[in-house]
Amino acid sequence: MIAVLRYGHRGLRDKRTSSHLGLVARAFGADLLVMTVDDEKVRSTLEDVVKNWGGAFSVEVKRNWRKFLRDFKGVRVHLTMYGMPLDDVIGKIRSQVKGKDLLIFVGAEKVPPEVYELCEWNVAVGNQPHSEIAALAVFLDRLFQGEELSRRFEGARMEIVPQERGKKINTY
Amino acid sequence: MIAVLRYGHRGLRDKRTSSHLGLVARAFGADLLVMTVDDEKVRSTLEDVVKNWGGAFSVEVKRNWRKFLRDFKGVRVHLTMYGMPLDDVIGKIRSQVKGKDLLIFVGAEKVPPEVYELCEWNVAVGNQPHSEIAALAVFLDRLFQGEELSRRFEGARMEIVPQERGKKINTY
Repeated sequence: MIAVLRYGHRGLRDKRTSSHLGLVARAFGADLLVMTVDDEKVRSTLEDVVKNWGGAFSVEVKRNWRKFLRDFKGVRVHLTMYGMPLDDVIGKIRSQVKGKDLLIFVGAEKVPPEVYELCEWNVAVGNQPHSEIAALAVFLDRLFQGEELSRRFEGARMEIVPQERGKKINTY
Repeated sequence: MIAVLRYGHRGLRDKRTSSHLGLVARAFGADLLVMTVDDEKVRSTLEDVVKNWGGAFSVEVKRNWRKFLRDFKGVRVHLTMYGMPLDDVIGKIRSQVKGKDLLIFVGAEKVPPEVYELCEWNVAVGNQPHSEIAALAVFLDRLFQGEELSRRFEGARMEIVPQERGKKINTY
């Protein structure tokens, strides 16, 4: 099981970025988005996508994220521009995760210093400021070595048939 | 030169996603963000990052995006979930781009059908709904075969020194 913990979510300001983050989590192979703040719009966006595009992705709210992070049984990875270069550590993380659960901690705002201590890994997807959405995608892409991009989702009502031009969708 | 054309930008709703997109463009090796709508906040976010973190990234506004896209001399790639799987086409795109400019078209909203015709390539970073921010990051990561993540930016006033725990920044 792979969970993505979205730390912080400042209402209107983060509505779309948290939705993007959840959609990336699902599309790139995670099973669960944990929000620290409830947002009905984010939840319904993800629920609609799961209904139409399949898979078993879900969203939970854990206001007490500290307890959730502390008690998590498995490997905890914090994505931060200050951390160790992704390509230096991804091999070790991949072996550690085998047969274990993985929690990926992703901040929307400044992250309390204890997170750097509680997580086994602080990982930088490049040491430049960019986007936690991009960081999550590239991290999962490296973890799964690109295989997540051709994954099929069970129970999908809609599936795209790749085209050089235009759009083709199969519906079931 | 690599330009990212952000098609559409619906004011408040897209402020943060367009900023993320621009930051990803810069961090993953593009040179220019072209917006079809001016947004002072997006521009100033990017200008501040360039001032502190270096490089020559810039932002331009082209309200007549059709003309810009049509007249672009180089290779035009449209990122869309309906397109051809990234890993099937990236090798051919990489060879085509050698010595040429590249335009990456990224929609914030529904894209007019002519875009599928005007671009040489319609490319899907997975055929699932997710995020144009993630799609751009993974596309550029594949294009540069991961080398963009360790790129250094000229004229930086700040540079991160990767750490296993905590934060270390060199300032110049």
